[in-house]
Amino acid sequence: MTHRIAILGASGYTGAELVRLIATHPGMEIVALSADRKAGQGMAEVFPFLRHMALPTLQRIEEIDFSQVDLAFCALPHATSQAVIGELPRDLKVVDLSADFRLRDPAEYAKWYGQPHSQPELQKEAVYGLTEFYRDEIRAARLVAGTGCNAATGQYALRPLIEAGVIDLDEILIDLKAGVSGAGRSLKENLLHAELSEGTQAYSAGGKHRHLGEFDQEFTKAAGRPVLVQFTPHLLPMNRGILASVYVRGDAAQVHATLAARYAAEPFLHVLPFGALPSTHDIRGSNYVHVGVTGDRIPGRVLVVAALDNLCKGSSGQAMQNANLMLGLEETAGLLMAPVFP
Amino acid sequence: MTHRIAILGASGYTGAELVRLIATHPGMEIVALSADRKAGQGMAEVFPFLRHMALPTLQRIEEIDFSQVDLAFCALPHATSQAVIGELPRDLKVVDLSADFRLRDPAEYAKWYGQPHSQPELQKEAVYGLTEFYRDEIRAARLVAGTGCNAATGQYALRPLIEAGVIDLDEILIDLKAGVSGAGRSLKENLLHAELSEGTQAYSAGGKHRHLGEFDQEFTKAAGRPVLVQFTPHLLPMNRGILASVYVRGDAAQVHATLAARYAAEPFLHVLPFGALPSTHDIRGSNYVHVGVTGDRIPGRVLVVAALDNLCKGSSGQAMQNANLMLGLEETAGLLMAPVFP
Amino acid sequence: MTHRIAILGASGYTGAELVRLIATHPGMEIVALSADRKAGQGMAEVFPFLRHMALPTLQRIEEIDFSQVDLAFCALPHATSQAVIGELPRDLKVVDLSADFRLRDPAEYAKWYGQPHSQPELQKEAVYGLTEFYRDEIRAARLVAGTGCNAATGQYALRPLIEAGVIDLDEILIDLKAGVSGAGRSLKENLLHAELSEGTQAYSAGGKHRHLGEFDQEFTKAAGRPVLVQFTPHLLPMNRGILASVYVRGDAAQVHATLAARYAAEPFLHVLPFGALPSTHDIRGSNYVHVGVTGDRIPGRVLVVAALDNLCKGSSGQAMQNANLMLGLEETAGLLMAPVFP
Amino acid sequence: MTHRIAILGASGYTGAELVRLIATHPGMEIVALSADRKAGQGMAEVFPFLRHMALPTLQRIEEIDFSQVDLAFCALPHATSQAVIGELPRDLKVVDLSADFRLRDPAEYAKWYGQPHSQPELQKEAVYGLTEFYRDEIRAARLVAGTGCNAATGQYALRPLIEAGVIDLDEILIDLKAGVSGAGRSLKENLLHAELSEGTQAYSAGGKHRHLGEFDQEFTKAAGRPVLVQFTPHLLPMNRGILASVYVRGDAAQVHATLAARYAAEPFLHVLPFGALPSTHDIRGSNYVHVGVTGDRIPGRVLVVAALDNLCKGSSGQAMQNANLMLGLEETAGLLMAPVFP
Repeated sequence: MTHRIAILGASGYTGAELVRLIATHPGMEIVALSADRKAGQGMAEVFPFLRHMALPTLQRIEEIDFSQVDLAFCALPHATSQAVIGELPRDLKVVDLSADFRLRDPAEYAKWYGQPHSQPELQKEAVYGLTEFYRDEIRAARLVAGTGCNAATGQYALRPLIEAGVIDLDEILIDLKAGVSGAGRSLKENLLHAELSEGTQAYSAGGKHRHLGEFDQEFTKAAGRPVLVQFTPHLLPMNRGILASVYVRGDAAQVHATLAARYAAEPFLHVLPFGALPSTHDIRGSNYVHVGVTGDRIPGRVLVVAALDNLCKGSSGQAMQNANLMLGLEETAGLLMAPVFP
Repeated sequence: MTHRIAILGASGYTGAELVRLIATHPGMEIVALSADRKAGQGMAEVFPFLRHMALPTLQRIEEIDFSQVDLAFCALPHATSQAVIGELPRDLKVVDLSADFRLRDPAEYAKWYGQPHSQPELQKEAVYGLTEFYRDEIRAARLVAGTGCNAATGQYALRPLIEAGVIDLDEILIDLKAGVSGAGRSLKENLLHAELSEGTQAYSAGGKHRHLGEFDQEFTKAAGRPVLVQFTPHLLPMNRGILASVYVRGDAAQVHATLAARYAAEPFLHVLPFGALPSTHDIRGSNYVHVGVTGDRIPGRVLVVAALDNLCKGSSGQAMQNANLMLGLEETAGLLMAPVFP
Repeated sequence: MTHRIAILGASGYTGAELVRLIATHPGMEIVALSADRKAGQGMAEVFPFLRHMALPTLQRIEEIDFSQVDLAFCALPHATSQAVIGELPRDLKVVDLSADFRLRDPAEYAKWYGQPHSQPELQKEAVYGLTEFYRDEIRAARLVAGTGCNAATGQYALRPLIEAGVIDLDEILIDLKAGVSGAGRSLKENLLHAELSEGTQAYSAGGKHRHLGEFDQEFTKAAGRPVLVQFTPHLLPMNRGILASVYVRGDAAQVHATLAARYAAEPFLHVLPFGALPSTHDIRGSNYVHVGVTGDRIPGRVLVVAALDNLCKGSSGQAMQNANLMLGLEETAGLLMAPVFP
Repeated sequence: MTHRIAILGASGYTGAELVRLIATHPGMEIVALSADRKAGQGMAEVFPFLRHMALPTLQRIEEIDFSQVDLAFCALPHATSQAVIGELPRDLKVVDLSADFRLRDPAEYAKWYGQPHSQPELQKEAVYGLTEFYRDEIRAARLVAGTGCNAATGQYALRPLIEAGVIDLDEILIDLKAGVSGAGRSLKENLLHAELSEGTQAYSAGGKHRHLGEFDQEFTKAAGRPVLVQFTPHLLPMNRGILASVYVRGDAAQVHATLAARYAAEPFLHVLPFGALPSTHDIRGSNYVHVGVTGDRIPGRVLVVAALDNLCKGSSGQAMQNANLMLGLEETAGLLMAPVFP
């Protein structure tokens, strides 16, 4: 049986990545694509790389007949997303890729996003979409909130360690290197090739990045007590990929063993041999996560590095994995493509 | 039924690309991988991006039991390839990705490659692997010779025009822009990131590039009279992708119509609307070819531009497409993944 | 004696490049910088790479006291430039970097730029700024029009050949590869790192690029009869650099000798040994031009390749060279820095 | 007066960068260039970007008449350098760019470089080349040891803080992002464009990178007690530039004030306004260092970020600055060029 899929916000990178994944998905068919400002255009005009696919013309959301849709991916900007989802049929399965339903506490949402949430009851309903840690809830969910791409990477490195209590909860530092597609198709000077290639810099440093709200919520929940991490993202001259260099205190061998055991049965998580560290080159275009651990010459210091593709496992691939669960499909359906190297 | 596949020369980029394609191929299973100097290593050591796959350990070619192999891809260097294939069982299906069996005339081979061919009878047996133009022969072949990646790109732009007689055969110029993975995993200073990124230059200019041997052979055959083209490749700071800007003389509308008609039924060839020109961004990581045509302010001048991924459609994807035909599989099996953008 | 310089339009790349050049110029001092929308800001805010320089605050053009200025560089957008220059004192020396004064024929200007020129008498006064071919006129000029960066590159390859009559004037084809900084600081999706890196495509193909107006004007003048060239620019994933692959008909040795003789005494033009072709890697950040020539296996076909840095020799470096002449300074002052490699 | 300069090891990147700097240096002239394996070639063959300079032919070191040389830059590989310098006249001024004379303690040298030092008395004589902290010693020195490029970057962020006692000496973590030219012109697979562009990874992590020897030596000296830092370098897809994200404990405002005061009179060091962080884009090709400081939402945590060009200020620019001092020239001579942006 083929499930009927709508993608709302199909003119951005995460929307296009969903189409890419569905191109070879055995159980999904795209029946509607929306993009308000580009309604009436074909996807080949907006994204010529999808020229080979027979796809519905872009339309306005209000033109979509959702009674013919089994699941909607919502790849809209923050704030817009909650307004749109608030208008959708209440029995429609929805995977939201925005930040709107990631935080469960309305006060935290208001603090990090600067305005009150307009759909508090939907916020309550939403399940946090980090598949490997919310699998059962996601399977039963109607509305799943995709995680931040940086937040996902940091959690893959840290969450099993916090749950197992093998690291010092007050000494966690995440130095993260992110590719530019995470910034979306935004027209900003610092995202131009001329200004971004061949250099790097930190951004939203000093405790200001919004994904800290997710770290706080999830790590505190996992630890059973408040956990605050230090977090500095850097923008790198690469299109896809996040590398999180996570500095913790503990026993390096135990850290490695904890991660290896926790992810042994996970289809997309690969823990490298002790001492080997991952590269974003090796997961590009795929849904895989590589995690590595090494010790330090200073006893008790441990480095955990996690790498994933922000557009795939960090966003649209995760969304697809969750949709598979929500629709009763094989969790890995459409997601087993190998990375693209070189 | 799953066909048993061996890949000889699995430690290079085209070998690795074959493994990538087989990762999601429904009818193939890798039973042997060879890499002489890396025999004994696992693929995850040589190509960590393939870490998630259960793959045979790399071995020496002489250790492979070819009675358990249905088809061998041979991704070895030129000259080595003919020696190795000469030793393989004569009933084993082989797709060769090297230059060794592309030229049918031993004298032409000797001229372009600087030495006589060691397997003239195999050279005679081999079928030229440009699928869309040799489909029936490939289906029946035992030994198929993969084309040069530049040679494929130029032929997709030109071959239907030459066959249809709609362009001036004495005024063909190919200015080609090639990504660096076409040079393979060679350790040369000009291929270092520091020396290749952020700049461009021509190479093998002036009628010296070996793919001219293929152009001469195939265009002369298609035209029924000698055809010599002018050809300048340029090395670009990108990893995958070839863009061939082909300058011809004729009627632009007729040129466009000829290409559109010829490729209408082809699963991987897409002719853009008249006046639109392709980008390598839109075919990266895929088996698709985009072809565009425009006229010029100078009457009778026509520009045809073709774009493909050199490692996929230009090499390993083409090889897979041919192997599918040779094994009686669906021609497009394992090759329908969408391009990766951005 | 230090000359007092104003830069109008200092918030774009060519304006910033002028500041870079003046940083080590022995005879110039910046006394005014304008940028209408950023008036009141310091240059370190707009271009942090100029943080080390003591520079005037950005101001509006009308705030500048031009009686204290010896020469103004005008790095404004097309059309804006003619309006601004029309208001400047008529005895102020001006080097314009826009397209507004490149074409001498008002009809040609209107044809290529889609509107009539608003300052026809200034258009008549302006001297075309290709230094090596208009040196005496520039020395005496009050208003010099910077050339297009593509137009400069093509002319360095072709102009001596047309003047000497050693090539077929009806068979000239320029296939050009351009870095992205030539597009300026424009916020367009195709200039984003995510959409531009790792790929290439043609643009303004088929006789539509505005620099054709310059080619027509200058080559026709040099030849003494109408000359139309075919010209296809391509956008490459590099920030600086233009490589023009120019295809002509003639005798390759004679072509090489003609260029070598014509440029022998030029401080910035270097003709490579016959058969060697230039790379944009080797001129990046500098005012040098490298030119190479090779023959072809098809008799009578010749390839001339010219490489320069579009922001420097193609724009701001050329402007500086002309300003030096206009102010009676050494022509090479401030321009002898070596390229930056790697 | 023009000083006569020899560059030993002119076929590598740091050697070529020295030539670039001397191209516009008012007080230096190159009288000898060595490159053993390329002896007899011209620099234009080895580095075509230097084609415009009149330079001596490459020769073997033993062919150089050092009585005609005022100062030699030694840009040779580690270990080779000490052997060569051991043979040079004892009154020849030498700036060594290798790692051979950075560590003062023979035991430390042996520990980090895996072999005993062959010139212990020269090791004792050598002055550590971090100009801003050893200016007087360098002025009087005959042999100056260039610092590691990573070591320089980390020290610019940390050294004034350690000297002033404003940070916790047991909680220093350096997460560093380095461009690829720091690896030199080495032919390694991971330095190929195809394998390095578009991704990132850590290397020499866990306390193994040799520049830790310099950090230990210099920070311990500055603190007057042992200081061990944690240090993880990452390789980034950019050619020039190092960004050191340095995590310390203290009062952010005090940290900023300490750095600002310490560097106020330094010609090449620029401390950004509090809260602003530097980008490697803004120092590329120059001798400038940008340093920024911000606090964190966790009280007492401070982020210091330093950016410099590894080939220039991190290596050859530093060497030139030191040579200027040793020769009694203006310290900034030949080093005031602005960065190249974009």
